[in-house]
Amino acid sequence: MRLAYITRILRPGAYLFSYLRLAGSSPPPRTGNTDRVPGQTLYPDMNDQDQRTVYMDHAATTFTKPEVLAAMTPYFSRYFGNPSSLYRFAHTSREGVEEARGRVATALGAEPEEISFTAGGSEADNWAIKGVAAALRKRGDHIITSAIEHHAVLHPCRALEKQGYQVTYLPVDEFGRVDPGDVEDAITDRTILVSVMTANNEIGTIQPVAEIGRVAHDHDVLFHTDAVQAVGAVPIDVDAMGIDLLSLSAHKFYGPKGIGALYIRRGTRIESLVHGGGQERGRRAGTENVPGIVGLGRAIELATADIEGHNRRIAALRDRLVRGVLGSIPDTRLNGHPKERLPNNANFSFRYVEGESILLLLDAHGICASTGSACSSASLEPSHVLLAIGLPHEEAHGSLRLTLGDANTGEDVDYVLSVLPEVIGRLRQISPLTPACARIPEIE
Amino acid sequence: MRLAYITRILRPGAYLFSYLRLAGSSPPPRTGNTDRVPGQTLYPDMNDQDQRTVYMDHAATTFTKPEVLAAMTPYFSRYFGNPSSLYRFAHTSREGVEEARGRVATALGAEPEEISFTAGGSEADNWAIKGVAAALRKRGDHIITSAIEHHAVLHPCRALEKQGYQVTYLPVDEFGRVDPGDVEDAITDRTILVSVMTANNEIGTIQPVAEIGRVAHDHDVLFHTDAVQAVGAVPIDVDAMGIDLLSLSAHKFYGPKGIGALYIRRGTRIESLVHGGGQERGRRAGTENVPGIVGLGRAIELATADIEGHNRRIAALRDRLVRGVLGSIPDTRLNGHPKERLPNNANFSFRYVEGESILLLLDAHGICASTGSACSSASLEPSHVLLAIGLPHEEAHGSLRLTLGDANTGEDVDYVLSVLPEVIGRLRQISPLTPACARIPEIE
Repeated sequence: MRLAYITRILRPGAYLFSYLRLAGSSPPPRTGNTDRVPGQTLYPDMNDQDQRTVYMDHAATTFTKPEVLAAMTPYFSRYFGNPSSLYRFAHTSREGVEEARGRVATALGAEPEEISFTAGGSEADNWAIKGVAAALRKRGDHIITSAIEHHAVLHPCRALEKQGYQVTYLPVDEFGRVDPGDVEDAITDRTILVSVMTANNEIGTIQPVAEIGRVAHDHDVLFHTDAVQAVGAVPIDVDAMGIDLLSLSAHKFYGPKGIGALYIRRGTRIESLVHGGGQERGRRAGTENVPGIVGLGRAIELATADIEGHNRRIAALRDRLVRGVLGSIPDTRLNGHPKERLPNNANFSFRYVEGESILLLLDAHGICASTGSACSSASLEPSHVLLAIGLPHEEAHGSLRLTLGDANTGEDVDYVLSVLPEVIGRLRQISPLTPACARIPEIE
Repeated sequence: MRLAYITRILRPGAYLFSYLRLAGSSPPPRTGNTDRVPGQTLYPDMNDQDQRTVYMDHAATTFTKPEVLAAMTPYFSRYFGNPSSLYRFAHTSREGVEEARGRVATALGAEPEEISFTAGGSEADNWAIKGVAAALRKRGDHIITSAIEHHAVLHPCRALEKQGYQVTYLPVDEFGRVDPGDVEDAITDRTILVSVMTANNEIGTIQPVAEIGRVAHDHDVLFHTDAVQAVGAVPIDVDAMGIDLLSLSAHKFYGPKGIGALYIRRGTRIESLVHGGGQERGRRAGTENVPGIVGLGRAIELATADIEGHNRRIAALRDRLVRGVLGSIPDTRLNGHPKERLPNNANFSFRYVEGESILLLLDAHGICASTGSACSSASLEPSHVLLAIGLPHEEAHGSLRLTLGDANTGEDVDYVLSVLPEVIGRLRQISPLTPACARIPEIE
């Protein structure tokens, strides 16, 4: 019986299920633990007895580095005081928070009082956009952003549209770049905010942030950038880049989940998102997440200590991966900018196959990867980013994002290169989209 | 030279400074570590070589229990996957989150899908109030709350007033109780939400929540309760108590800071506060704080395992403290309800002295206490709660809140009772408010 027939008449769920059964038929390799580059941060042991695991989804999240966890741990049960309390016992908590604030400020070229801690990147993005919109409502009601922003920027913009604000979603070129000239053209006398991300989470494209910042400031418009994916890879200087507001999230650079920050340039008018107690200079209520803040501070310090060296090492691995994939798998394209991209990002489209199917087969081989962003991976929507760079609908529906991290090695890359061509070949054989249907084999 | 003269002519800062110098003149006792009740959770060792520390500010924050931290730890660096990711490695993170969600639901008598995780109590309060207001704007624009709510409820209400909503702030009786009849009288055909806290953070008064819930539901109005101080002390059953929305925060019951939850009854219309990715069933965007969520789940399980036994033990200590204070210090009152109060809360007013001054002297003796709430302790505003229960302005400006916790012992209570009368006596001697000025001593 031909699988292709089944896949044509059944719904996508069953189609994927067929893939999974195929995947199950090939036993996963049992290579056990692998050597790591000496001197590297200890990689968390993800390998159980039966299955090797290669994690290449660092854009989704990263492990917390042992040094970071070690810095955080005393603040849970030992130095647990509320930083707002007056007694000396709580000073240690307050000092931990303020030391971390200083570290974040240093990493961005900012002043400590310009850093406010949040629960993560999404809260920071929401706060920047809704907070500026509310504070400057009398001055204007127009916001400019791009079509390839993270949903944590796009959805607040849509929420504001429902309240009567105007939002311009700028297009991007085939590599995912925003043209600063387009930003300038879109500015009107009602424009209050430009929000363009520093680097894209799906295709890794780095935006001309400094140019966009200059354009915004030339017109007295505030500039926000979502730098959640960029911190640790793109050197940030808020002054040189003309940034008024910047969002970041610790778990993207080996810090803990649940903590982030919003840089707010001194003098910037912004309404609170979370009202209440007087924490964060009255800007963001809620008892400070002291261990998380301390972890963020340590993580950003580590992540920005040697950006150039880090990028060189990661990009070398990534380039080896990209060369290997493009060289061994036909009908494949690399999405995103060829040069102006995050050093750890490789995003591929393989014609005739679906992203989710690739993920499932790679998972059967212990490879952790992603299609689109993690946040929307449970949905069946095509990637708005791939649509925006001009991919046809069927290709935008599936892509493979491999994002390398501090603990990946050449061996990890070789392993992926040993598995991926077979996976793609197999999926193409059974795909109803593949032109040469004769290639579909009999399944017993 | 008379200190009273100085304090009359100098600003309050200098006044406090004089106290501090006095405090410095009495060497702190050096009792070292103290025995703990056998079988208790290990109390964090807060005692350094020179100074005994007694922590009685558990309403401000609690230490994270070792069992809770142990449950969280594997999710930082080992099971670090993004719960939204599709591969098996991330299943462990997702399972950790969902198991915790089940535990929170069980503790409240709710269903797991009615629990959404937040960064803490303040976010939960903001979300409940602003989210319902936005979702039901077409139906009405009137909110009823009480004068003694936490700022995380009052300030969002004020923000809504600026947007054109109407808010009724109900008065409370001398014990801090809201009259359910007042709630009913305040309801109009424009009322969309009643928000009354389960228990007050300053004076510990427990509200007639079930009655208020019944009144709200009789009029088809949603009922939110801020249960941040109540979880672990007041048994919660959202159905029996007619609760539609409930806020809680882990660090108030021996869980970590930076994580909380909002219970949202199935079918309740609410707009998101943080828009973006599809996490929390599309209601609250942002990568889940997996370790924090796991910690919250474990903490609420521990906190609700034996509420009655816990309350009996804590209340016995608290009652011993209250009897001792009222019996040894004249011109003292216990604020809050004599019976309907949190078992760990003791809130005193001492005539003629300021709360901050008491705190500073107690701190010199290693006793961690609070005046008003921690969130506003850095401000010089009088407590809105004490004003609402009818205290005159000068008494509302100063109060002493001692809130006991799981690791406090009878010895801790005895230590406070050995220090506090002397501290109050001393402050009254130098206070310009004390009527008998003749009692002021010469200072060399």
